[in-house]
Amino acid sequence: MELETIQECDGGVTAAQGFVAGGLYCGIRKAKKDIALVRSTKPARTAGVFTLNKVVAAPLLVDKLQLQKSNLCSAIVVNSGNANACTGEQGMKDAWTMVDMTANALHLPREQVLVSSTGVIGQYLPIEKVIEGIRELSTKLSIDGNKDAAEAIMTTDLFSKECAVRFKSGSSVITVGGMAKGSGMIAPNMATMLAFVTTDAAIAPSALQAALNAANSHSFNCISVDGDMSTNDMVLVLANGLAKNEEIRQNTLAFQQFLTALEYVLIKLAKMIVRDGEGATKFVEIIVQGARSEEEAMQAARSVANSNLVKTALHGADANWGRILAAVGYSGIEFNPANVSISFNGLPVFKPNYEIVLDEEKAKEALSQENITVLINLNQGSAEAHFWTCDLTKEYVNINASYRS
Amino acid sequence: MELETIQECDGGVTAAQGFVAGGLYCGIRKAKKDIALVRSTKPARTAGVFTLNKVVAAPLLVDKLQLQKSNLCSAIVVNSGNANACTGEQGMKDAWTMVDMTANALHLPREQVLVSSTGVIGQYLPIEKVIEGIRELSTKLSIDGNKDAAEAIMTTDLFSKECAVRFKSGSSVITVGGMAKGSGMIAPNMATMLAFVTTDAAIAPSALQAALNAANSHSFNCISVDGDMSTNDMVLVLANGLAKNEEIRQNTLAFQQFLTALEYVLIKLAKMIVRDGEGATKFVEIIVQGARSEEEAMQAARSVANSNLVKTALHGADANWGRILAAVGYSGIEFNPANVSISFNGLPVFKPNYEIVLDEEKAKEALSQENITVLINLNQGSAEAHFWTCDLTKEYVNINASYRS
Repeated sequence: MELETIQECDGGVTAAQGFVAGGLYCGIRKAKKDIALVRSTKPARTAGVFTLNKVVAAPLLVDKLQLQKSNLCSAIVVNSGNANACTGEQGMKDAWTMVDMTANALHLPREQVLVSSTGVIGQYLPIEKVIEGIRELSTKLSIDGNKDAAEAIMTTDLFSKECAVRFKSGSSVITVGGMAKGSGMIAPNMATMLAFVTTDAAIAPSALQAALNAANSHSFNCISVDGDMSTNDMVLVLANGLAKNEEIRQNTLAFQQFLTALEYVLIKLAKMIVRDGEGATKFVEIIVQGARSEEEAMQAARSVANSNLVKTALHGADANWGRILAAVGYSGIEFNPANVSISFNGLPVFKPNYEIVLDEEKAKEALSQENITVLINLNQGSAEAHFWTCDLTKEYVNINASYRS
Repeated sequence: MELETIQECDGGVTAAQGFVAGGLYCGIRKAKKDIALVRSTKPARTAGVFTLNKVVAAPLLVDKLQLQKSNLCSAIVVNSGNANACTGEQGMKDAWTMVDMTANALHLPREQVLVSSTGVIGQYLPIEKVIEGIRELSTKLSIDGNKDAAEAIMTTDLFSKECAVRFKSGSSVITVGGMAKGSGMIAPNMATMLAFVTTDAAIAPSALQAALNAANSHSFNCISVDGDMSTNDMVLVLANGLAKNEEIRQNTLAFQQFLTALEYVLIKLAKMIVRDGEGATKFVEIIVQGARSEEEAMQAARSVANSNLVKTALHGADANWGRILAAVGYSGIEFNPANVSISFNGLPVFKPNYEIVLDEEKAKEALSQENITVLINLNQGSAEAHFWTCDLTKEYVNINASYRS
């Protein structure tokens, strides 16, 4: 796909026309912003993807019901510090309260509000604080509120994550922008990650959902920090049509263009999540080439990306390519190990017919970089997949041994 | 199954009649014993299970060929420090050389020798040193050589692993004993683990293999240290018949008795591997009850046992039961989270209908123990499974960031 016409721009979730946002501290976390609001001045077409975990947090259950009723959304309310997951009836009640309070404060129909939560599982929301937070925040939304919103959805994140792009579609200019959070419990099929994307494109609902599905499968479904899949993951895209372009439909050039822009934003946000991986010191791209299908390439790449042994070896700049081959070996795909080649940042270490060409010194140098590309060629087809992960460090253990404390 | 009649005894792999063993340093590792031999004075019926990894080390390929030719085995030669995996043609040649040198030195038919390796992947064996080691070791086998053999198969293991039991079968006394190694790259469907078990039972070949399959599925397939499955795993059982019992056949009481004894030995060895898990400070038993099938119970238990988030929380004595429920949630089984209950060492923390009964202080105390039992009841059936794992620590990262160095 061509990216030439797509330009990055500032503004994150408020870059597109007609969106305002904000974030502030309401008392869930310890002295950090913990509630965010995003609002579209015009009801927006909405598409969403949600965690595949069988344990689904209350806000996701509420949003699925909301989207069944109406695919128009005017506001998203998000809290951090508490996932409102495994909280039963009370959790559902609290999620609906967040919806209702937001609808009241912004004078919106109830069905046009979506809700999201992230943080500790299994504790009830301090709902009075949340209500007070929504009330206050609803009066402070602005076009400059994107940064506060992006900060307010962070949990163990070390930096906030925003991206926006702009492109020409006919005589209109379309903007796609978003924010995300996530740094642990990151696994394929999403993760403890939330992403909220806004656009002023006019786009048919089915085309919007199709674009999100496709872009998501090449971005958030291709990242892993620890292989744990969360109960709260979601990606929402709101399209309010204010760019006044001709409505985008599937199987058109305009659709391809929109998809490219959306994919650009989601991939950039996904990579930021990996870079911010809990305790991570290295950003690792796993590329599997020469596979018989994209699915098999992805399966192999995911297996390597989730291997603790691979991730600790990369942390230690140890050129232990045997662990990489072993991880492909237990990925479940059929392949002949004798055909495989492996390289680190362009340096071949293993060639077909088990030819070991490892230059320890050069390999150590390659693996000491902050950015590492592991290229695995199965040499049995033409399909490929990319997957992004990070190293596994003592700091990861530190963070997660006392997350709730 | 009844264990009353089964008594533990000393002797490990030489506890049963007619077995001698030994181990010594031949120069593969740094100043540590690295080659072991086990010999049966009478050719023994042999059963084996091997890794499911698609990348299979040379010695396993050789053993599979050997067992096709003859299921009688008189000697097993094992080296540590080098896995002879991903070594292609040269690796196959080296594995056959180990077989031939052992056959020559002990005056055995070539087809009665099995070979095994463990250690670093992707380096050629220093075969001259190995040959010299076999020559020397073959003159030093004894009934007291079990401890040296058990030490010589260790890699990152901190202690050697042996177990033996004795029981009456009719008028005969049958002994089953064995040794194992493993402390990292431990995952379901075996792991970087080797186990060699000897018995003087007279048993039909098909019954021996059936007993091994059953015992293995309740022992080595129920442990996990890091979820990585190795290229070298194998369990071998040799039965030489010197106990002179009536030959054991399947579907008999004697078979049940033998299976119970074998399972006892394998479970004990498997638990030792977990206790010796790289960097581990805690031994964790995951019990899933109330499942619709044993397979589903196992699937859920495995998912919890392999979760980095669960393992770091247990390390930090953090009662983060939400991560446990989330790991069941992405295990792939169907269940209703509202029915689930969870307890730590008998202390309930989560009850059906999302009732959170967590007493933080008591939970902290329970999780500060060295032995932790996590009981998860799905309350939707009567099947259960046990799975053993350890906590994930900074020391695990330490060990594996520089394993080859």
